[in-house]
Amino acid sequence: MKIGMFTANFLDRDLESVFNMMAEHGYEAAELPAFHGNGHLDIDEVLKPGGAKKIRDLAAKYRLVISALSNHPEGQLVLGPHTSDTDSLYPGNPGASAAEKIKFGMERMKQTARAAAALDVPVVCGFIGCEKFSRWFPWPYPQGWDEMAEDFVNRWGEILDVFAREGVRFAHEPHPNEYVYNVETAVRSVELMGGRPEWGFNFDPANIILQGIDPVIFVQELGDRIFHAHAKDGEIVEHNVRRSGLQPTGKWNRIDRGFRFRIPGWGSVPWKRVLTEFVLKGYDYVLSYEHEDVVMSREDGLEKTIGYLRPLIIKGKYTGRGDKLFE
Amino acid sequence: MKIGMFTANFLDRDLESVFNMMAEHGYEAAELPAFHGNGHLDIDEVLKPGGAKKIRDLAAKYRLVISALSNHPEGQLVLGPHTSDTDSLYPGNPGASAAEKIKFGMERMKQTARAAAALDVPVVCGFIGCEKFSRWFPWPYPQGWDEMAEDFVNRWGEILDVFAREGVRFAHEPHPNEYVYNVETAVRSVELMGGRPEWGFNFDPANIILQGIDPVIFVQELGDRIFHAHAKDGEIVEHNVRRSGLQPTGKWNRIDRGFRFRIPGWGSVPWKRVLTEFVLKGYDYVLSYEHEDVVMSREDGLEKTIGYLRPLIIKGKYTGRGDKLFE
Amino acid sequence: MKIGMFTANFLDRDLESVFNMMAEHGYEAAELPAFHGNGHLDIDEVLKPGGAKKIRDLAAKYRLVISALSNHPEGQLVLGPHTSDTDSLYPGNPGASAAEKIKFGMERMKQTARAAAALDVPVVCGFIGCEKFSRWFPWPYPQGWDEMAEDFVNRWGEILDVFAREGVRFAHEPHPNEYVYNVETAVRSVELMGGRPEWGFNFDPANIILQGIDPVIFVQELGDRIFHAHAKDGEIVEHNVRRSGLQPTGKWNRIDRGFRFRIPGWGSVPWKRVLTEFVLKGYDYVLSYEHEDVVMSREDGLEKTIGYLRPLIIKGKYTGRGDKLFE
Amino acid sequence: MKIGMFTANFLDRDLESVFNMMAEHGYEAAELPAFHGNGHLDIDEVLKPGGAKKIRDLAAKYRLVISALSNHPEGQLVLGPHTSDTDSLYPGNPGASAAEKIKFGMERMKQTARAAAALDVPVVCGFIGCEKFSRWFPWPYPQGWDEMAEDFVNRWGEILDVFAREGVRFAHEPHPNEYVYNVETAVRSVELMGGRPEWGFNFDPANIILQGIDPVIFVQELGDRIFHAHAKDGEIVEHNVRRSGLQPTGKWNRIDRGFRFRIPGWGSVPWKRVLTEFVLKGYDYVLSYEHEDVVMSREDGLEKTIGYLRPLIIKGKYTGRGDKLFE
Amino acid sequence: MKIGMFTANFLDRDLESVFNMMAEHGYEAAELPAFHGNGHLDIDEVLKPGGAKKIRDLAAKYRLVISALSNHPEGQLVLGPHTSDTDSLYPGNPGASAAEKIKFGMERMKQTARAAAALDVPVVCGFIGCEKFSRWFPWPYPQGWDEMAEDFVNRWGEILDVFAREGVRFAHEPHPNEYVYNVETAVRSVELMGGRPEWGFNFDPANIILQGIDPVIFVQELGDRIFHAHAKDGEIVEHNVRRSGLQPTGKWNRIDRGFRFRIPGWGSVPWKRVLTEFVLKGYDYVLSYEHEDVVMSREDGLEKTIGYLRPLIIKGKYTGRGDKLFE
Amino acid sequence: MKIGMFTANFLDRDLESVFNMMAEHGYEAAELPAFHGNGHLDIDEVLKPGGAKKIRDLAAKYRLVISALSNHPEGQLVLGPHTSDTDSLYPGNPGASAAEKIKFGMERMKQTARAAAALDVPVVCGFIGCEKFSRWFPWPYPQGWDEMAEDFVNRWGEILDVFAREGVRFAHEPHPNEYVYNVETAVRSVELMGGRPEWGFNFDPANIILQGIDPVIFVQELGDRIFHAHAKDGEIVEHNVRRSGLQPTGKWNRIDRGFRFRIPGWGSVPWKRVLTEFVLKGYDYVLSYEHEDVVMSREDGLEKTIGYLRPLIIKGKYTGRGDKLFE
Repeated sequence: MKIGMFTANFLDRDLESVFNMMAEHGYEAAELPAFHGNGHLDIDEVLKPGGAKKIRDLAAKYRLVISALSNHPEGQLVLGPHTSDTDSLYPGNPGASAAEKIKFGMERMKQTARAAAALDVPVVCGFIGCEKFSRWFPWPYPQGWDEMAEDFVNRWGEILDVFAREGVRFAHEPHPNEYVYNVETAVRSVELMGGRPEWGFNFDPANIILQGIDPVIFVQELGDRIFHAHAKDGEIVEHNVRRSGLQPTGKWNRIDRGFRFRIPGWGSVPWKRVLTEFVLKGYDYVLSYEHEDVVMSREDGLEKTIGYLRPLIIKGKYTGRGDKLFE
Repeated sequence: MKIGMFTANFLDRDLESVFNMMAEHGYEAAELPAFHGNGHLDIDEVLKPGGAKKIRDLAAKYRLVISALSNHPEGQLVLGPHTSDTDSLYPGNPGASAAEKIKFGMERMKQTARAAAALDVPVVCGFIGCEKFSRWFPWPYPQGWDEMAEDFVNRWGEILDVFAREGVRFAHEPHPNEYVYNVETAVRSVELMGGRPEWGFNFDPANIILQGIDPVIFVQELGDRIFHAHAKDGEIVEHNVRRSGLQPTGKWNRIDRGFRFRIPGWGSVPWKRVLTEFVLKGYDYVLSYEHEDVVMSREDGLEKTIGYLRPLIIKGKYTGRGDKLFE
Repeated sequence: MKIGMFTANFLDRDLESVFNMMAEHGYEAAELPAFHGNGHLDIDEVLKPGGAKKIRDLAAKYRLVISALSNHPEGQLVLGPHTSDTDSLYPGNPGASAAEKIKFGMERMKQTARAAAALDVPVVCGFIGCEKFSRWFPWPYPQGWDEMAEDFVNRWGEILDVFAREGVRFAHEPHPNEYVYNVETAVRSVELMGGRPEWGFNFDPANIILQGIDPVIFVQELGDRIFHAHAKDGEIVEHNVRRSGLQPTGKWNRIDRGFRFRIPGWGSVPWKRVLTEFVLKGYDYVLSYEHEDVVMSREDGLEKTIGYLRPLIIKGKYTGRGDKLFE
Repeated sequence: MKIGMFTANFLDRDLESVFNMMAEHGYEAAELPAFHGNGHLDIDEVLKPGGAKKIRDLAAKYRLVISALSNHPEGQLVLGPHTSDTDSLYPGNPGASAAEKIKFGMERMKQTARAAAALDVPVVCGFIGCEKFSRWFPWPYPQGWDEMAEDFVNRWGEILDVFAREGVRFAHEPHPNEYVYNVETAVRSVELMGGRPEWGFNFDPANIILQGIDPVIFVQELGDRIFHAHAKDGEIVEHNVRRSGLQPTGKWNRIDRGFRFRIPGWGSVPWKRVLTEFVLKGYDYVLSYEHEDVVMSREDGLEKTIGYLRPLIIKGKYTGRGDKLFE
Repeated sequence: MKIGMFTANFLDRDLESVFNMMAEHGYEAAELPAFHGNGHLDIDEVLKPGGAKKIRDLAAKYRLVISALSNHPEGQLVLGPHTSDTDSLYPGNPGASAAEKIKFGMERMKQTARAAAALDVPVVCGFIGCEKFSRWFPWPYPQGWDEMAEDFVNRWGEILDVFAREGVRFAHEPHPNEYVYNVETAVRSVELMGGRPEWGFNFDPANIILQGIDPVIFVQELGDRIFHAHAKDGEIVEHNVRRSGLQPTGKWNRIDRGFRFRIPGWGSVPWKRVLTEFVLKGYDYVLSYEHEDVVMSREDGLEKTIGYLRPLIIKGKYTGRGDKLFE
Repeated sequence: MKIGMFTANFLDRDLESVFNMMAEHGYEAAELPAFHGNGHLDIDEVLKPGGAKKIRDLAAKYRLVISALSNHPEGQLVLGPHTSDTDSLYPGNPGASAAEKIKFGMERMKQTARAAAALDVPVVCGFIGCEKFSRWFPWPYPQGWDEMAEDFVNRWGEILDVFAREGVRFAHEPHPNEYVYNVETAVRSVELMGGRPEWGFNFDPANIILQGIDPVIFVQELGDRIFHAHAKDGEIVEHNVRRSGLQPTGKWNRIDRGFRFRIPGWGSVPWKRVLTEFVLKGYDYVLSYEHEDVVMSREDGLEKTIGYLRPLIIKGKYTGRGDKLFE
């Protein structure tokens, strides 16, 4: 298992200086952003002659593996919502039609797959979107949730066809405001996709724990479909949660929130149990640090995350102890 | 404190037979539905000459107080969502515009206030609606939740003006898919409404507990604004919740749900603590049984609810014990 | 769901006086002992002309259904242990050989099936035995547990053939010192028996809880195979368990035990959750009170058990509420 | 076990009307106040010719046993504190010297023993006092707590000599501001008193639970010394305790207290476990309801307490079930 | 945030050797004792010409900041108790009058403020005392607690006037046997002191946790008033607390105590949550290690405390991540 | 306290290479296997001239203390079970008689004591065996457990006589399938052995925790009899235990087990509490790492165990702080 980082944590620095910081702290893998306008990676450039090599060389210079390209904003456009909520994710006019946003989102996700292939990166992470997430609750439209399955299958099926051709897998990140957000919808999505091998998950335990779900159960049931994982924690804030609950509105840095994202080890994710289940299910790829902790600085996070996780990484699966009385 | 029932539990029976069942089981109060097309109460008829008296007489015949009129579906139309999700709540064409639904909803809520006044019923319960409930989570549109405040204040302010004129109070029921759904949004709504006396809550502890919130804290902070209360329980299903979480999709009677509604005493609501806090905050009106328990029949619920709650009702607040050494 | 009693609670009284007590307290079903020498029922007599009718008439006189015949001691002899541990269960010489005990046990269980058929009783409850229960722990013989499967399949398969012919089902009671004792071994036993319909369980939640298992999960997974159920509770003794654990030795009435059996409502079994899961899985037969509570007298238990359980019985499954907006 | 009541709950009513209320609700025992000036019992009158008979006859008229005389205030004067804190307990001048208060307290407790003997009442309940309770914490005077043992032994030893002569036992009620207040100090007090048989406890589980102690452990260790018991509950107020703690100051009816006294069943005392341990240790005398619940009225308490406790009383200890295979 | 140490942990060594040990282990701040007769700091000497410089130079030599002067014993004399309990704190005759002790205590605390000013130390830590701490419980003198407020305001008001003149703040340490000991009394004390800026707290989470209070709530409510903090832990001893409770008497090293002080990381204080709340409230001064752990040696504590805390210190508050989609 | 390792973790490597690995990782003590056929130590060779010196020299070369010889398999033969379950532990014919196995086991344990003496090793660890462990549960033979005491006393008494002569102590490891397996049976065994000083325990907290027992209580009650301790952890697998329980059958690496052994820090053993109680009871010898963790490799375990435990070792007991106000 490698410890990596999502370079979008430092979008205000250029990619090489981020790589440099990572290498100095001992990180071994980089997850790169793929959405338009980010300053780290332009997927159109990657697909130009020599474009991929330049990035690969830069990573190699710092002995970093590129674990994944990540494109959450443009993936969100595929299923929505297609209201003003996603205008900031779309480079065109505010108030663009659903059709425009969908088309753009689908094109870009296909292009991300192509860029990944060009970079020899096996995984693209992202969001799939959800037109009306509030339909998880049956009132006032109980059939609403299931009705959204069709668009999911059609649009993402078309995108995944490109992934299949490119030999890249797509790792959706279960999260609020996504059509697939918890254990049950993830299990269902595999069925809806007919078990096709390109479809899997970017497992971020913090997103799971905020629903009152044990993230270890996600690994136990869906470990074979985990293609990538985030090193992010979520704090069920003990002294606030009984008043604020798990669904508070408002700013992430409100002091009285019932839930907030944290760096690993500062929240409620049971990391040893998660890492144990990874071994038992065979997940052994990358833990990629994403900073959404609004309590501490990214510099703190960069140092503390690897300081916390490195001693916990299980290097090898048990292979017996050569004692006929024990085995 | 009176124990009552929301007669919509038995919409497949006529009102008098429902009143009769209630009286036989010892219920003392009735919450009547006000939405169009329900078979128990037609608010337009109530406002015709003699209409109110007929209903009042029927209730009196069974020694029942009418605790509230309830109009959740038409209240939902005021703030939405104004998509197909609410077509079933609207008597006009499917696919009606937002404006049409809003106009209808607002008119009907005003009319409900008038009918309540005609019936000498001091409270109307209902939902206020929410255009996009999924905005409670900041991604992808962090400012979205707060932007919806304006419509809430404008539309419901206009409706509450009618309530004020009629001398009736409106009790919104905090619930998923409503703009006011938890402790924090309820506190905020009182501020947004400038503390006007017509604005308060129909406290249903089951709706609160499903968010991981202690319902007693709702009473402690907002008890002065509780105008009506539901006797409904919610079960955080111990053996399912770590997998299914508190936000499962799908049918209420799925056996593996992490949460389901129940009758009082069969869920996770701490009733003695709730009733204690009612006394300490001075709430002493009605506990109205609403059946959404998909495990047991309504006949069971009718009997078990009052059997469970009656011995728990605190009849009088402590007034000392005449012992100078104790007090 | 009927509330019944295992008449072996009062083997020091004659059957009619026990029936009489049961009727007076409102019990509706009787589980009768079938092992040799018990004073309530002699299965050989039952199979003589007129023998069955006599018992059926006696039960009818007190309006009792005979829910099951129970034969735990003789069932235990089928798989053992065949050491001095079972001498008291065997009517022959102490120190009889395993073969003798097995033969006797198998014959008696077949005979019990025949007696049940004669009495129109659809279920026989009992134990299946276990030669070496300590093998659940892998040391010092890891393959030991699985090796015992063969005898289970062969001996009980032969017995179940008779059950099949007689139209009676066998309900094994998972319990320590039985080859099938928990959720996992029960699931496995259904597989080993090839899913044959005569094989199922007498569900006693107290026996499950003493292993740290949630009995509701047993119902969720094996509810379709529950043919009979015991109303017995088990107390994980809070103030003792951290020292004494769940596997204490010695007398049941030791004051410092970490675990003891109790009557329903005085232990750690979550009865409302169990009864809820019964409804969801469709179990609706009998809850039969067995007294193994060493704190209180059987007379107390007789009264308190039905007093506790009767208000909890769910009379009918939910069938909707006639409200198109809710369902 | 009888359910009784401490008549001081209703000092504002005359004794006969209290007895009448108790009898109507099914209470079987009365604990009477003995301190000066209470309107129910004047111990000096009791010791006059005919005085005791009058009280005994009154109790008999309502079929009540007098379970104990209770004299908490005058017992408190024996060990203090002898500051203004106890002026209200002393009938003489405010600011009386310690010696005066001690002398009065000791005389009155002896007199209470004599009155109990005259009334054939086997137990006197009360407090023993404590000069400086704050010494439980070692700072700033670590030896302070143990130094107070001498006065306890001397003064109460002299009082207990009178109890011994009168054939009455003294039941101290462990409680904050008493020299004996928890399990450990109670165990120590028995040693300090040399195990003399007149020294024991009035067990009030609410007083124990407020220290974070499991009251069942008190029964397990000291059950042989429990001479009387109070039916009083204590609520560790879940939604307040993390802020207010178990040692809040101020009025009992503050809504945000971390702890408050309650009637049985409305607090945190595990009554079934307590009653079970009573049986196992052989305590079978009286549970006497004392009202210190500041949430609900005494009339509520009178009805609810017996309604809650009566079904829980264990009428008889287990005596076997006549089944040689079970025992 | 600096990690410091209260040098009184090693009063049996001279100050320079203590400073040396601290520097070797990486401590950056020193809290010095100010009470009479301690061998580390004589405040009268400090106020002599050159006295302050000598101490400042010594600290500078080891690159230590002096975070605070601490004077708990002499502060205790201000409010008492003025019985033999405080004789050891007073240098005069045992049995001195309250007035003498008060006068001495007040003078010394003023002098401590002057010494702090001379040393450029911004904070004095200490205790305020409490005449009768047992009055937290209402019996037998319910008005007693509030009556003590006057002396608190008068005596400490006068002392704080000196602090104000000297530009030093006083940090009382909430603790048993102090008039201000928990969240509620701390909040009240700020009101009683009219919000004057010299009044605040030395936050020692171990003292808070022993009352069953979440220390994070102290920070959340009073963080603006925390002027200094102790790195001390408190262990609610899991296997003892149900018997011994949170208020045991007797020696700190009794093996069966329900509570004992510990070094950070070996008790029940949730340090990550505390440090998180420090950041959110802006406390960023010093965590000063005080050794009251009776299990392990001070040498262990010196090494383990900084080893445990250093990786937990949050170096910088979150300042965004330069990603317009996230913020 | 030294951190050691049981070399049987690496029976597939020769002893010197294991010693070398240990020294490189900082281990200071070695527990050596003594059973026949292990490749690390042949006790018969040890007892030949020069045999002991060779081993002692090898240990000294790597600065390792030999903390104990361990002989679990041959000890098991002393009390059984004497069925096929122990054939693999016995070097003779499969199906050997009980008498043969007992004789062999007893001789070998005596020989192990002699070898320990020759090596100047003060402790032999091992198992004592148990003929029928399933008798811990009263059914079907309640007197069975106690009947096994006689063989325990006779056989092990004879063995311990040799230990006494050799000046070596025997440390039985409480564990399932041993006659002494929990706190209560350990306490009883000391009584049965008449308190003889050779009889004590090899404390392995993982074996205790799997029964739902707090291992700290074992230390508190039996610390004086702990002669050796294992650094092994046990994981009560949170997401599995409610279904699988604490007594699952089958392979240790089943992913859905309710319990599995782990290396220290990855299970449910509260190490800080255990180490604290060690200090309070005076245990200060060795913590010997045994690898039975089926999740991770032994190489991982070797590194992580000492990495986890070393910072937790308490080097010295508290001896005061030279502050007359504190002590």
